[in-house]
Amino acid sequence: MAALELVEALGYSRLTIEAVAARAGVGKQTIYRWWPSKGPLLFDAFVEFGPVGTDELPSGVLAVDLARELRAAVEELAERRFDQVCRLLVHEERTDLVTLLLMPRRMALEERLRAAQRLGEVRADVDLSAAVELLLAPVHQRWFLRTAPLTGEFADALVDLVLRALRT
Amino acid sequence: MAALELVEALGYSRLTIEAVAARAGVGKQTIYRWWPSKGPLLFDAFVEFGPVGTDELPSGVLAVDLARELRAAVEELAERRFDQVCRLLVHEERTDLVTLLLMPRRMALEERLRAAQRLGEVRADVDLSAAVELLLAPVHQRWFLRTAPLTGEFADALVDLVLRALRT
Repeated sequence: MAALELVEALGYSRLTIEAVAARAGVGKQTIYRWWPSKGPLLFDAFVEFGPVGTDELPSGVLAVDLARELRAAVEELAERRFDQVCRLLVHEERTDLVTLLLMPRRMALEERLRAAQRLGEVRADVDLSAAVELLLAPVHQRWFLRTAPLTGEFADALVDLVLRALRT
Repeated sequence: MAALELVEALGYSRLTIEAVAARAGVGKQTIYRWWPSKGPLLFDAFVEFGPVGTDELPSGVLAVDLARELRAAVEELAERRFDQVCRLLVHEERTDLVTLLLMPRRMALEERLRAAQRLGEVRADVDLSAAVELLLAPVHQRWFLRTAPLTGEFADALVDLVLRALRT
């Protein structure tokens, strides 16, 4: 947690193991016993304390639930500490970024769509993993390439468009 | 052109200005007169010789034209020389990547959708730039994060889904 607070305050390049140890109230050696350098340390902190989806229970209304998930994704990426760590992981082409951070959100969305498909709200022939990419990829692209502002309104507009594509 | 052929053969890290000069049949100094290093040289070569969309005339059928554009994008990213140069530019966070390479394809798609909107094939209230992101972002994400195979079939499936979202 100390590492995430510090990367938010200092940025990655100025983050040091010494500062993390001081902030956490432990000796430097305690940190080095577990992590060889700041990269892996930060990654583990991020996986442990980074949010993966909303804790709210499904509302039962598909459009509401999808918009909540997408707005949560937008808010996460807007937080400086997540923005910094995620960019770093993308640049390092860390496959665990995809496995650990992207997959939980993808699976949550896919599960919600599958439930809707069982209820006949989503066409039976829709490839749900493609549907999830349709929802998440435009958010990630705006964030990563900074092509346009990443807002809650954009998340809502995406859900609206994609639902039209999926509905029976 | 020599630079693009060499980056395809050697990969970026083993590309040298000397090798480009030899391949182009000019002296090293001729290259250095215009480009300080291999990064900017490669970028200019890429912009000059890289494809930006299909040369084919619109078929008049919206689904056919969109699928052609998307399949062209998929094919480009699959070519080793473009894959290498694009990844490099993404990692350098070169904003000219977005301006010069992404924008022409985005604009071609947006123009095609605008024509369809005028003909009443696309709903009048659709935000066309969001529609373009819906088409391109899943392609870019599969390419960049290597989350799933990037195929022509995926391009077709995307067009099919997105058209359902846009149609009147």
